[in-house]
Amino acid sequence: MNIGPYSLEDYMHLVKSFHGSVAPGLIVGGFMVEAAKGELPPGILYDAITETVVCLPDAVQLLTPCTVGNGWLRVLDLGRFALCLYDKTTGRGVRVFVDPGKLDGRPAVRDWFLRLKAKRDQDPVRLRDEIIAAGTDILGVRPVVVARSFIAGGRKKGPITLCPACGEAYPAADGPRCLACDGNYGDIIICDLVRKRE
Amino acid sequence: MNIGPYSLEDYMHLVKSFHGSVAPGLIVGGFMVEAAKGELPPGILYDAITETVVCLPDAVQLLTPCTVGNGWLRVLDLGRFALCLYDKTTGRGVRVFVDPGKLDGRPAVRDWFLRLKAKRDQDPVRLRDEIIAAGTDILGVRPVVVARSFIAGGRKKGPITLCPACGEAYPAADGPRCLACDGNYGDIIICDLVRKRE
Repeated sequence: MNIGPYSLEDYMHLVKSFHGSVAPGLIVGGFMVEAAKGELPPGILYDAITETVVCLPDAVQLLTPCTVGNGWLRVLDLGRFALCLYDKTTGRGVRVFVDPGKLDGRPAVRDWFLRLKAKRDQDPVRLRDEIIAAGTDILGVRPVVVARSFIAGGRKKGPITLCPACGEAYPAADGPRCLACDGNYGDIIICDLVRKRE
Repeated sequence: MNIGPYSLEDYMHLVKSFHGSVAPGLIVGGFMVEAAKGELPPGILYDAITETVVCLPDAVQLLTPCTVGNGWLRVLDLGRFALCLYDKTTGRGVRVFVDPGKLDGRPAVRDWFLRLKAKRDQDPVRLRDEIIAAGTDILGVRPVVVARSFIAGGRKKGPITLCPACGEAYPAADGPRCLACDGNYGDIIICDLVRKRE
């Protein structure tokens, strides 16, 4: 059994090295990414969306050319364990998700995925075995089209200017001050408060 | 010259493999991550913030234990080329940014960083050489404290339930329907429209 170009064992080593642990979500995620890749026409350039911040972004980053930092993966915090791979010019692609209707007879997967048991009460070995035995059988796969407005969005282009408040460079399109100094994240990080105090 | 545990050459191979190209932002980012790590007390568990979606998330993911999928890296779309590494319990840490005041005498870096020249008019070899010669000399490094409210935020805990609209699992705390079906992302991805049409 392989996950993309890796044996299952090599994939789990890679996951441990990148993600820090062989989390169940990365194993399911590996099957999800490969199921999605298998539905795409060969040779196309594709982008990726994950609909959760949890685990899936790392499976996509390890198994596709799409990363957060190169802009080909965009991570939405929708709370759904699902991903889309889609042609970056047409938006046509595939969405893969865990189908709760396919978890019958897989009690360890169900208890983990639906958080029916506390982590300390789960059996990690059984969970891993069930996930591997299930492979793509617990997944739903559907054709999708990603909206043109979403495809066209993403990275800000255009001129860079210096923020009169913090003195750092930012996209001029954001307004007369950078988004941080404009208060958008003022309650999130107090980096700037510390800097002003110096 | 090393970037973390890697020779500069090995780091650039790693960047090429993960990010797809040896982007200037990944080389600067490598120096930024290492400058930040060098300011942290040894042995602490730290989390990371990048203040841009561009390039820096990949430098952090390659050079620290923090990834998007494991939740230790959070990516803010502030448009500033800066990152923070901070103690995950106290919030105390360090913020590293490119200081525009330190770009004099480094014309290729300045033209790239402030987008003063179109990419096709830049000399990529000269740019890389200037970035490597500069190392950490173009950076600002400041102590920061990350807000407790931000540290406590992040991953949604609590029960999972099934969305009555799409049938998929989502965090019950999000409300009676999942965030996607609740219209929050309705104009972004039309995955759900496609599914409803089937």
